[in-house]
Amino acid sequence: MQTSSQQQATATLEVIKNYFMDLQDRICAGLEEEDGKASFEEDKWERPGGGGGRSRVIANGKVFEKGGVNFSHVFGEMPEAITQKLGLSAKVHFDAMGVSLVIHPESPRVPIVHMNVRYFQTGDGTHWFGGGIDLTPIYVVPEDATHFHKVLKSACDPFGEHKYPEFKAWCDRYFFLKHRNETRGIGGIFFDHLKASNDEEKAENFAFVRSVGDAFLDAYRPIVAKSKTLPYQDSHKNWQLLRRSRYVEFNLVYDKGTKFGLDTNGRTESILMSMPPLAAWKYNYQPEDDSEEAFTQAHLKPLDWLSI
Amino acid sequence: MQTSSQQQATATLEVIKNYFMDLQDRICAGLEEEDGKASFEEDKWERPGGGGGRSRVIANGKVFEKGGVNFSHVFGEMPEAITQKLGLSAKVHFDAMGVSLVIHPESPRVPIVHMNVRYFQTGDGTHWFGGGIDLTPIYVVPEDATHFHKVLKSACDPFGEHKYPEFKAWCDRYFFLKHRNETRGIGGIFFDHLKASNDEEKAENFAFVRSVGDAFLDAYRPIVAKSKTLPYQDSHKNWQLLRRSRYVEFNLVYDKGTKFGLDTNGRTESILMSMPPLAAWKYNYQPEDDSEEAFTQAHLKPLDWLSI
Repeated sequence: MQTSSQQQATATLEVIKNYFMDLQDRICAGLEEEDGKASFEEDKWERPGGGGGRSRVIANGKVFEKGGVNFSHVFGEMPEAITQKLGLSAKVHFDAMGVSLVIHPESPRVPIVHMNVRYFQTGDGTHWFGGGIDLTPIYVVPEDATHFHKVLKSACDPFGEHKYPEFKAWCDRYFFLKHRNETRGIGGIFFDHLKASNDEEKAENFAFVRSVGDAFLDAYRPIVAKSKTLPYQDSHKNWQLLRRSRYVEFNLVYDKGTKFGLDTNGRTESILMSMPPLAAWKYNYQPEDDSEEAFTQAHLKPLDWLSI
Repeated sequence: MQTSSQQQATATLEVIKNYFMDLQDRICAGLEEEDGKASFEEDKWERPGGGGGRSRVIANGKVFEKGGVNFSHVFGEMPEAITQKLGLSAKVHFDAMGVSLVIHPESPRVPIVHMNVRYFQTGDGTHWFGGGIDLTPIYVVPEDATHFHKVLKSACDPFGEHKYPEFKAWCDRYFFLKHRNETRGIGGIFFDHLKASNDEEKAENFAFVRSVGDAFLDAYRPIVAKSKTLPYQDSHKNWQLLRRSRYVEFNLVYDKGTKFGLDTNGRTESILMSMPPLAAWKYNYQPEDDSEEAFTQAHLKPLDWLSI
């Protein structure tokens, strides 16, 4: 249980929204500082059925080749396709909001990162939080993976020591490419449908989500800082393009958020902001034995990164 | 009604298989001739549950940057996930075979092409043919689109003049990216579940499928021949990379063959042979007014290419 004043904030729609928008601001500022050259450009958009968002895109930076940090809050009458899936009554009002980001660095030495925190509620009282953070290194560096998971564990532990192992395992299951028999990267945490039966529990869930959102820069920036100046060659860049194509495969074949967005006439450019700037497919590519690439390939499975 | 001796061939599994394998040979030979430098490399593979295939890949040619022309014949006990979808009895034996190809040329002046002809049967007597051919120009050239559709119409007409318009419309509906509100290219023909209630009808359907398969080189080669030496610049290449990413989006988000293959533990490398060698995503890219790119974008919708 948290006892901080922050945790006591009543989790109204307005309070959650303000947190998400502030989180977007802080993350963009932190990433710009880390890049040192490019800044985010903002696109405000409106959804015909209700709500909208502010998409922020960084491109051709010194460190970040392409990335998006989106905030959106959409609301209105629930599309029928979804009420059916969720077993909700027809024509119910819904609010869905969150911050979602994917960053594709230029250097193959710097990992791709993804984070999402979200809140959903309907007019008939259903509500939940979801989210997660996961890292996709082009080259797996065990100590960086350990750092990443340690920060996530620290963000989870105050809310119960079962949370990190549970949400870490969920992440490994979720970010898995069945047709490639590999994880998307070194994982992280993933959680969804965090429901509450009273206001106190809801405040606790919101505090947990804040703890995750606030951990993002601590988890990612130190890895970027130490890897962004490392040298690399064309062969590393080619491997990056192949790894990025797996990222594309995951997002278009499996990712529920992407599917949900495309199915419900979401804003395509915001949904597909997660796509890499450039990706390559080679037929039947196999890394050479004992290569750096083979090392990474061998580590694309659920592993206990805290004690590796 | 056809009266040629070819059409009278009894459409046994063996006869259909021989046709498909021969078609694969002829198409590979024709494309190699057109390329003038690279040749197809063959990978034979076996499916644990029964059957297998011969995948043929061309890479880094003078004309063709990456392409695959696959033959496969898989059989065995139908996976339960599929018997349910198709409303078939459990544990039924099935045979599925066909030729499937996607070619990604190096030059943005030369269109991407896709063809598929397939046959499916089950132990309890259900059987059907399916297939289609469609063209995805990076730059739409109306007279080439007209040529392409004329060849396809000629292949269809002997089997009834309703076939071309019906299968052309089906192609426009099928190869449509809803989230982009655009067709994949200038279309072609698409058909599925061509069933027969007696041997004569089945022979007629087989003759139709042969007519489509045999039309492929006539439809595609003249377009390659006239466009492969046209000059282009970096800006054309960049547009090609963007168009290819739409191809990726279609295949991973919508294509039923790809989904079916990935869902049923098909051979991933053969299924994803359709992926381009390199593709790019740019946030919110819009072609300049009155540009060649804007002309193409404006033509990515169902159009009557025969009388344009």
